[in-house]
Amino acid sequence: MKILVTGAAGFIASNLVPRLLARGDEVAGADNFFLGKREYVAKGLDFRELDLLDLDRVVALFEEFRPTRVWHLAANSDISYGTTYTDFDLKGGTIVTYNVLEAMRRTQSKEIVFSSSGAIYGEPAVLPTPEDYGPILPISLYAASKVACETLITAFAHNYGINAWIYRFGNIVGPNPTHGVIHDFVLRLRKDPTRLDVLGDGTQSKPYVHVEDTLDGMEFGIAHARDRVNVFNLAVAGHTSVREIAEWTVAAMGIRSIDIRYGDSPRGWPGDVPRVRLDTRRMTTLGWTPKLSSAEAVRRAIRETVEQFA
Amino acid sequence: MKILVTGAAGFIASNLVPRLLARGDEVAGADNFFLGKREYVAKGLDFRELDLLDLDRVVALFEEFRPTRVWHLAANSDISYGTTYTDFDLKGGTIVTYNVLEAMRRTQSKEIVFSSSGAIYGEPAVLPTPEDYGPILPISLYAASKVACETLITAFAHNYGINAWIYRFGNIVGPNPTHGVIHDFVLRLRKDPTRLDVLGDGTQSKPYVHVEDTLDGMEFGIAHARDRVNVFNLAVAGHTSVREIAEWTVAAMGIRSIDIRYGDSPRGWPGDVPRVRLDTRRMTTLGWTPKLSSAEAVRRAIRETVEQFA
Repeated sequence: MKILVTGAAGFIASNLVPRLLARGDEVAGADNFFLGKREYVAKGLDFRELDLLDLDRVVALFEEFRPTRVWHLAANSDISYGTTYTDFDLKGGTIVTYNVLEAMRRTQSKEIVFSSSGAIYGEPAVLPTPEDYGPILPISLYAASKVACETLITAFAHNYGINAWIYRFGNIVGPNPTHGVIHDFVLRLRKDPTRLDVLGDGTQSKPYVHVEDTLDGMEFGIAHARDRVNVFNLAVAGHTSVREIAEWTVAAMGIRSIDIRYGDSPRGWPGDVPRVRLDTRRMTTLGWTPKLSSAEAVRRAIRETVEQFA
Repeated sequence: MKILVTGAAGFIASNLVPRLLARGDEVAGADNFFLGKREYVAKGLDFRELDLLDLDRVVALFEEFRPTRVWHLAANSDISYGTTYTDFDLKGGTIVTYNVLEAMRRTQSKEIVFSSSGAIYGEPAVLPTPEDYGPILPISLYAASKVACETLITAFAHNYGINAWIYRFGNIVGPNPTHGVIHDFVLRLRKDPTRLDVLGDGTQSKPYVHVEDTLDGMEFGIAHARDRVNVFNLAVAGHTSVREIAEWTVAAMGIRSIDIRYGDSPRGWPGDVPRVRLDTRRMTTLGWTPKLSSAEAVRRAIRETVEQFA
């Protein structure tokens, strides 16, 4: 199968592409290296350096490569950016996703897999939050853009015969991170192992999913869910606190004496959702369960990140 | 109070502005006359011809006028456009709304009233559809953009201390239409009173709300709902079919013999939602009820439109 991966130098794509290539898919990928890294571009990938904000170049790529399926993973994945640069998610999320969908429409490309986020639920009244929760009142520009992307996908799907798999992620962790709390802690501890300043009071707690489980789940969904638009929370039932992640990271780096300083706010930054619980029953009913718990995913990712960066 | 109205030459604004001026508000308005009409600009309005896609000019307008409250009514209001020009709603809806919110953020403008749509619910499993219905899977690019705007508003509201009133409209009808089924029928019957081609099979049925009731309801909500973000369906409990509207319009124009030709599809166009029912209990619980039923609103709007255009 011919598969196009956007955000191909990013965290999730760098873990996905070797799987696709190993099973004989023909895979092209695009990235602008804004968050992605050159060393994360998988060997064997037909890679193009490209800014997806340029509609003409996106359409040209689709006209030339003619993908059967698009894994649209390109995005700003660092939620706090959007608070500083308010057009960051609008451009890198919403408009880029429009461009991908418009290129699909013009070239009759018919399948899209999309990385959305549990952040779209904002601070919901129902925990764990199911996929049909409403109203959707996100509190970050990142999440606002993810909702905008989801609805662009559902509208294009309805009008132009496109099939879509939308996954609302918990926090994904694993090798080749470009951002996120574990990556952040490891890099800062490498620089100064005597002190760690934590954004927020450390009580923030979310479900962490290992990227290998994430990719297993996404592929399971594609194989088994065959509606026009398929929307799934992709997470685990448990959760891990930032305080636990800080302590485990310190221990994994062999640091024995450290001054960990927590902030006062239960939020890490404006727009951070302190307490995330995603109802995973739709995926488990479909027949898929993650192999690793939240704590196991975090501990494994800490080991992987320490090995890679420390 | 200093009030800025976007889409100031459009249908709803042309009915709103005289109310605001009559009670002594200082009102500025902006429009690019894409859908709005010069003759709909109310006397006494401080009017600026402006394309809201130009962020610098939007910010300059806010810096100069410093509105206390923004009625953000500018939008593509013709859903079928978005199917032909797929970036129409992205630009005229989503990006324009980002620009308005960003200008509000930069100039400390703190209140926004927004015209959303019941179309955001797509083809929901629950009728009548309440405000907390999920999942939100719209089927038109118009509705996708309305969701994108709603979530931009909720994210800006959360992060920058803005208060918002979001109204999900039924079909609004009344004087100074720029689009919509009644306007369309009257103009076509004026041209050829012997024949009327109807988009869709005529069974499409939706709640119609008179613009005077709509404005009453919006102002009631602003006065009585004081959460950070207030989301309301604004509609009536009943509904009217396109077939009824066709027959009543023909009768109102005094046409005695006509060939009304219906299409085959229950949809008027791709992305049209054939059957809309909005749960209005949240507004009625707040204490507001519309004066006119759906049929009364339609009949009155037909009279008003025939008088204005035929």
